[in-house]
Amino acid sequence: MLQDLDAVMAKHRLDAMIVYGSSTYGNPELRYVVGANLARGGIFLKQRMRDPILVVSNIDHGQASKGIVNNVVTYSKYGYDELLAKHGRDLAAPLLMDRILRSHKIKGKIGLHGRNDASDLLNLTKSLRGFGHKITGERHPTALESVMETKSQSEIHRIMEVGGRTEKVVGKTADFLERCQQDGGRLTFERRKLTVGMIKAVTRRHLAEENLIAPEDFIIAAGLRSADPHYPGEDSDPVVVGQPIVFDIFPQDAGGYCYDMTRTFVFGEPSTEIRRMHESVLKAQQIAFDLVHEGCRVEKLMNSVCDHFSRDGFKTIRDLNKGDREAEKTGFVHSLGHGVGLTIGEKPYLSLHSDDILKVGHVFTIEPGLYDARVGGVRVEDVIALTESGPLNLTSFGKTLRI
Amino acid sequence: MLQDLDAVMAKHRLDAMIVYGSSTYGNPELRYVVGANLARGGIFLKQRMRDPILVVSNIDHGQASKGIVNNVVTYSKYGYDELLAKHGRDLAAPLLMDRILRSHKIKGKIGLHGRNDASDLLNLTKSLRGFGHKITGERHPTALESVMETKSQSEIHRIMEVGGRTEKVVGKTADFLERCQQDGGRLTFERRKLTVGMIKAVTRRHLAEENLIAPEDFIIAAGLRSADPHYPGEDSDPVVVGQPIVFDIFPQDAGGYCYDMTRTFVFGEPSTEIRRMHESVLKAQQIAFDLVHEGCRVEKLMNSVCDHFSRDGFKTIRDLNKGDREAEKTGFVHSLGHGVGLTIGEKPYLSLHSDDILKVGHVFTIEPGLYDARVGGVRVEDVIALTESGPLNLTSFGKTLRI
Repeated sequence: MLQDLDAVMAKHRLDAMIVYGSSTYGNPELRYVVGANLARGGIFLKQRMRDPILVVSNIDHGQASKGIVNNVVTYSKYGYDELLAKHGRDLAAPLLMDRILRSHKIKGKIGLHGRNDASDLLNLTKSLRGFGHKITGERHPTALESVMETKSQSEIHRIMEVGGRTEKVVGKTADFLERCQQDGGRLTFERRKLTVGMIKAVTRRHLAEENLIAPEDFIIAAGLRSADPHYPGEDSDPVVVGQPIVFDIFPQDAGGYCYDMTRTFVFGEPSTEIRRMHESVLKAQQIAFDLVHEGCRVEKLMNSVCDHFSRDGFKTIRDLNKGDREAEKTGFVHSLGHGVGLTIGEKPYLSLHSDDILKVGHVFTIEPGLYDARVGGVRVEDVIALTESGPLNLTSFGKTLRI
Repeated sequence: MLQDLDAVMAKHRLDAMIVYGSSTYGNPELRYVVGANLARGGIFLKQRMRDPILVVSNIDHGQASKGIVNNVVTYSKYGYDELLAKHGRDLAAPLLMDRILRSHKIKGKIGLHGRNDASDLLNLTKSLRGFGHKITGERHPTALESVMETKSQSEIHRIMEVGGRTEKVVGKTADFLERCQQDGGRLTFERRKLTVGMIKAVTRRHLAEENLIAPEDFIIAAGLRSADPHYPGEDSDPVVVGQPIVFDIFPQDAGGYCYDMTRTFVFGEPSTEIRRMHESVLKAQQIAFDLVHEGCRVEKLMNSVCDHFSRDGFKTIRDLNKGDREAEKTGFVHSLGHGVGLTIGEKPYLSLHSDDILKVGHVFTIEPGLYDARVGGVRVEDVIALTESGPLNLTSFGKTLRI
């Protein structure tokens, strides 16, 4: 949680932390410390045991003032335009940061965060170090990562709220599917052949109604191609009776908070194999959920799920590591889950070689899946919050396979 | 253009270039060289005069293969999982990159790109340099920036296509506004008091219909608050007869290509001041457009527009630099425009101290605006492409102020 920042900085022996970038969009670390959307981004500076400051473009001042940093000033206070005019783009940025750091008399180790092009950052760091600033890279988990990984009560409520809206979208999409007609092996909606594009249009409309955006789109993988876990589905893909539809949606709200859930549906009678895969996936999810407690090594969740799938006769990613190349595409081919917050890829990482340990405040997916090029894929994904009073499954949407 | 990459790398004396990241989302440089959406990102390696390779997670292999890199392999080829198990997350990443670089016998200077958290990058670079790799920061414009700034014919067509869909959304939103009723100074739609939230809902629905996403949302700033150029508009904001509505929309398509346009509308009779500002803004846009030609310094466009606004009696950002603090918020308070491609903030930068020079293939906005806390804001923004046969205004939407 953000309130732990001073303590975590002390642990990392950081005297200051800079988080910067040219926009808060695509820059969750900057979004997190600023608490507002800034089209032009800015420079956040936190000195240990002091209130942070935020330096922004004059035209972002209004938005920045709505965020969580009380002390917001504009670049012009530090004469940025004059620096640009005199020194050009390459030197103006480090000179500006130098002025900000000097004016705060920062002498010790400085952690640097924010997502920016690598080449720019290398130049910036070189210049700042040349000016005598002790810019340092931090080992994982970095100070900011540590703070961001445990969500506050209000962040958990926010994610639950995004979750509620996401479930509405999934529900309305499922309602649409319920209204489709079966005509032999074919499916139709209002006498038109049902395609993935038609389903996606429905989902998009409901996302818009809920004011959710899906910057990374969403997955509606129908038929055998659902065997590729990241196949997003093409508009022209047909939907076939008896074959799985993997529906994985990971939208965010206007402030960047995310959700991530998956359901698998089948029209008509699923094959024995699909049914067996679905049952095994649900069981895997339950096994993982039952293991969730403070202090649990996530690697244990992942290994228990792999053990379970192996017992059920499926390959897992562990077999890939033993040299079974088929396990790259068949069986349980991915990790069990990941943290959810301002990103859908953060700590805790529920993967085989993760050394993450579950903490109160962790919000993460549990998303076992099974894949087979001959029958398709099955994945079910919920979001779990580990609260003071134990694990909480935030996702209440039903898991019935058959439509 | 991407086909210039070898030549530009030679100019920068780069033997190789790495572009990497944990997702292509929020990572336009990686998206550009990969030509596909990768949920888990990857490592792109280009050796000068050789075909590039792309290393991705096994579950992104399918999507990666749809991109523009022919040689796609998975992390497991380089034993990444084994590295993770043995060395942990901090060392596995640089060790993986080291293996990739060694297997390609890369000895010379390596440019590094992609948007990643600063701290991670500092550690990665430190390790790679420790292994003897010549990781280098490039001066602006970097090799990749130079390649990305000039759009190919197909990229220009793509941006035009996104533009056509964006104009449809703006048109349908304007149609909705036309259907609203005036009742004295108030506006209603189907007897409900018109709010910005109602307009935004219409815009969102049409964005969804056009399969456009607005990851940075959009601006519908109504009334006096439109005087803040980045005020996005709150759902509860009322819409008042005679006051400006600044509608600025910057969506992207599923592949990340962007558009960016602004119109200002007024219900009923605009005040003399708003009309005068609108006329001056349109004139400014025409002045800038008439100056667009290959080889033109963009600083000239910006200064000509400032000259024009000064002649018309408005403050400009130049006055701010002369110490007039009021010019931070009043008059022409921002830059004239910016490049548009996989981002809405790239070269050419049409700002006061930019040393950019217009080239064939540049696609950029021209967006003069005038702001005054007592009357509101007026901004008009088109997208211009500088083609072989001269400048082309891609935005055909009308500029009538009055609804």
